Amino acid sequence: MPAADRAGAGKLDVSDPLAAFRGRFEWPDPSFIYLDGNSLGMLPTAALARAQHVVAQEWGQRLIQAWYTGWLRQPARVGDLLGEALLGAAPGQVVVADSTTVNYYKLAAAALDARPGRRVVVSAAADFPTDRYVLAGLAAARGLELRLVESAETTGLTVADLAGAVDERTALVALSHVDYRSAAVADLAGITALAQSAGALALWDLSHSAGTLPVGLDEAGVDLAVGCSYKYLNGGPGAPSFLYVRAVHQAALRQPIWGWFGQRDQFDMGPVYDPVPDVHRFLVGTPPILGLALVEEGVRLLAEAGLGRLRAKAIGLTSLLVDCYDDWLAPLGFGLASPRDPAGRGSHVSLTHPDGQRLREELVRNGVVPDFRRPDRLRFGLAPLTTRYVDVWDAMDRLRTLAG
Amino acid sequence: MPAADRAGAGKLDVSDPLAAFRGRFEWPDPSFIYLDGNSLGMLPTAALARAQHVVAQEWGQRLIQAWYTGWLRQPARVGDLLGEALLGAAPGQVVVADSTTVNYYKLAAAALDARPGRRVVVSAAADFPTDRYVLAGLAAARGLELRLVESAETTGLTVADLAGAVDERTALVALSHVDYRSAAVADLAGITALAQSAGALALWDLSHSAGTLPVGLDEAGVDLAVGCSYKYLNGGPGAPSFLYVRAVHQAALRQPIWGWFGQRDQFDMGPVYDPVPDVHRFLVGTPPILGLALVEEGVRLLAEAGLGRLRAKAIGLTSLLVDCYDDWLAPLGFGLASPRDPAGRGSHVSLTHPDGQRLREELVRNGVVPDFRRPDRLRFGLAPLTTRYVDVWDAMDRLRTLAG
Repeated sequence: MPAADRAGAGKLDVSDPLAAFRGRFEWPDPSFIYLDGNSLGMLPTAALARAQHVVAQEWGQRLIQAWYTGWLRQPARVGDLLGEALLGAAPGQVVVADSTTVNYYKLAAAALDARPGRRVVVSAAADFPTDRYVLAGLAAARGLELRLVESAETTGLTVADLAGAVDERTALVALSHVDYRSAAVADLAGITALAQSAGALALWDLSHSAGTLPVGLDEAGVDLAVGCSYKYLNGGPGAPSFLYVRAVHQAALRQPIWGWFGQRDQFDMGPVYDPVPDVHRFLVGTPPILGLALVEEGVRLLAEAGLGRLRAKAIGLTSLLVDCYDDWLAPLGFGLASPRDPAGRGSHVSLTHPDGQRLREELVRNGVVPDFRRPDRLRFGLAPLTTRYVDVWDAMDRLRTLAG
Repeated sequence: MPAADRAGAGKLDVSDPLAAFRGRFEWPDPSFIYLDGNSLGMLPTAALARAQHVVAQEWGQRLIQAWYTGWLRQPARVGDLLGEALLGAAPGQVVVADSTTVNYYKLAAAALDARPGRRVVVSAAADFPTDRYVLAGLAAARGLELRLVESAETTGLTVADLAGAVDERTALVALSHVDYRSAAVADLAGITALAQSAGALALWDLSHSAGTLPVGLDEAGVDLAVGCSYKYLNGGPGAPSFLYVRAVHQAALRQPIWGWFGQRDQFDMGPVYDPVPDVHRFLVGTPPILGLALVEEGVRLLAEAGLGRLRAKAIGLTSLLVDCYDDWLAPLGFGLASPRDPAGRGSHVSLTHPDGQRLREELVRNGVVPDFRRPDRLRFGLAPLTTRYVDVWDAMDRLRTLAG
C-alpha cells in the first residue's frame, strides 16, 4: 500500500475483523491515538464493572468466605485461560501471581538448583534489564558465570547466535521471546532444543509476545516461561505476572521462596515445607485477587479475538508503519530499528531519530502517545485490539510533519 | 464488667470515640458480626470510590502518563503514611509492594548476606508457617542452621526465651511481633537489643500488630520488618505488603532479587545492576498500583483513628471477651489460648474447644464470623474500627448457647 493513501488505511479498518473490539475499551477522547499498549495496555470496559464487583461484592459482602468460593483457584483459573488461548499451554501449567521480575527469579533459581554441577547461565547482552539483573544477582550469589551473547538488533536471536555459548557447562538459557526494543522474534523452539540438547533448561520471557503471536510453549517443549500481563494482556498497572512450568518438571523443580501458598496442606500450618507436586508450588504468598480479576478480563478479550486474527492484524499494522517509514521518514533522518520481515517481528516497531525525545513529546501534544527508549528510539506499540490502520497512518503523518 | 450485662457493653459503645468509624465500612447486613478482620479486614467505603478512580481515571484516562504523575512514588508514599501513623517509623524507611512472604524473603536474605560468617538463623517453632518456610528455604540453600525456640503459647516471646539461642554465630533473629494464634506480644525492643548485642540483625513480622498496637520501630532500633496489609490495615484480598529497612542499613543491605524498580537510573536500562542507596532498592518489579491505592485508603482510616485510641479499644474489646470466657465458656469446656494480661495481648483472642470446627460453622450460620485454626482453635479478631462491644457480647452469648 502506498503510504500516501489514507483511504487505503481506512479500507483496511472497514474490513478488519477485530474492528469492533475498540468499542470494548475506554477512550480518554475519541481522537486519541495510543501507541504505547506495549508499555501499559488500555482499560477494557469490562474491567470497570469487574473491579467494582470484586471490591464491593466479593470482598465487601463475602469477606473471608470468598477465599473458599473462588479466590484460592484464581491464580490457576486465569493461568489456564491464558495458557490455552494465547500460550499454547495445556491446563495445569500456568499460574498468575507476583511481579514478572519475582517470577523470573523464582524460575531461574529453580532451574539453577536443578543443574547443580553446571556453572554457566546464558542470556543476551541486549535482553530486558530486569531479566539481566535477576540473572546477574543469581550468578553473583552462586558464583556462576553469566554469559551474555551479542546479537544483531533487528534480527531475532537464532540458534547460530547461541550455539557458541551453550555447552555442557550451561545450566540455563534465559531469553526474551520478542525483543523489548526492536520487536525481533527469537527462535524459541530452536533455541529451546539447543539448550535441552546440551542438558540445560530454557526460560523464556514472553512479556512482548503473549497476546500478539503464537508462542506454542507445549509444542516447542519449553521448560519455563514468565510474562507480563499489563502490556498486550491489558491487565492494568502492576498487574500480576504469569509463569509457566512444563508439566513434566513440576514435581522436580523447587523455587527458592518457600511460601504457604505452595504448601501441600496450606491450612494445616505444619512444621515442614512440603510443596504440592503441581504448578501451585510456584506460588508463594497471598495472590493479589483484584489484580488477578482484571488480568482475567483482559485475557478474555484476547481469547475472544483469537490468536490468528491478533497475529494477522499485528503484521498488517506493523507493515503499514514500515511502509510509511520507507516513504516518508527514512528521507528525514529516521532509522528502522525493527525487523523488516513481518514473520520476525512482534507487534511494535522502533524508529530511531536524533531528536527522538523531543519528537515523542511533540507527538504527545499532537494526540499520539508512543513510547521512548533512550537514547534515540521511538517505540510504537500497535496493540491489535485498540489500534486502527488509520491511527498508524495519522501518527506517521504527524511525525513526518513534526520532523520535517 | 460482669459478662451477663449486655447493657454495660452497649454503654461502652456509646462512649467509644471510634464508634463512628463503623459507618465508613461496607456491611453485608447490619446485624452481621465479623470477627475475622485479622484474616481479611473489611472494606472501607472510601476504597470503592478509590478503586473506581484508579481504574477509570488514572489507568483509563491517563494511561502511561500516570506513572510520571504519581504511580512511581506510590510505594514510598503509602509506606511513609503507614510508617509515621502506625509503625513509629520516620519517612524514607517503608515501602509497600510484593507479598508478605516475598518481602520476608528479600529482607531475611539481605540480612544473611550482611553477616556472611555467621551460620545460625534464630526463629520460633510456633511462628507463622510461611515465615518459617522462608527461613527454612534460605537455611537449606546456604547450609545454615535454623534454630527454632520453643515458647509458652500464651505469653509472648521474651529475652529469656531467646537468650540461650542467640550468640556470636547468629546472623539473624526473625520473629513475629504478635503471635498469629494467641495474639501474645513478643518483647520487640528487648529481643532486638539482644540480637544486636550478639552482632545479629533483627527482622520482625508485624502482620498481627500493625494497626493494633504501638510498634515503635525507630525507637526500638529494629533493623528490618515486614507486614501484611490485608488484615487490620483493610487493604483488601492479597493487598501488597509493607517492608521497613532502618535508614542506617539501607545503603549497605542488598536484597537478592535484583529488579529494575530498585535500579538507580531505572529508565537508562544500563548494563549493570546498581541499586539506589535508599529504601527503593528493596523494590523489585512493577508495583501493583490498584492494590497500593486501596492500602492507602485503609491506612488513612487507621491514621485518622489514631494509634492510641485503636490500642485502647483493642484492650477493651479483648478484655470483654476474656471476661465472657471466664463467666460463661470456661465451664463449658473452652480454654483460653491467649494472654490474660491485656498489655501482652494484641487485638484477637483464641479459645480452644474440642468441637471448635463445628462451633465455627454454627457461629457462621448464626451471623458471627470468627476464624478457625486447626485443630481446635476459634480465633476472634476484634478489629477496633469495625467491632462493637455488643458484638463481642453477642458473639460470646451465641457461642455459649451453641456449646451449652
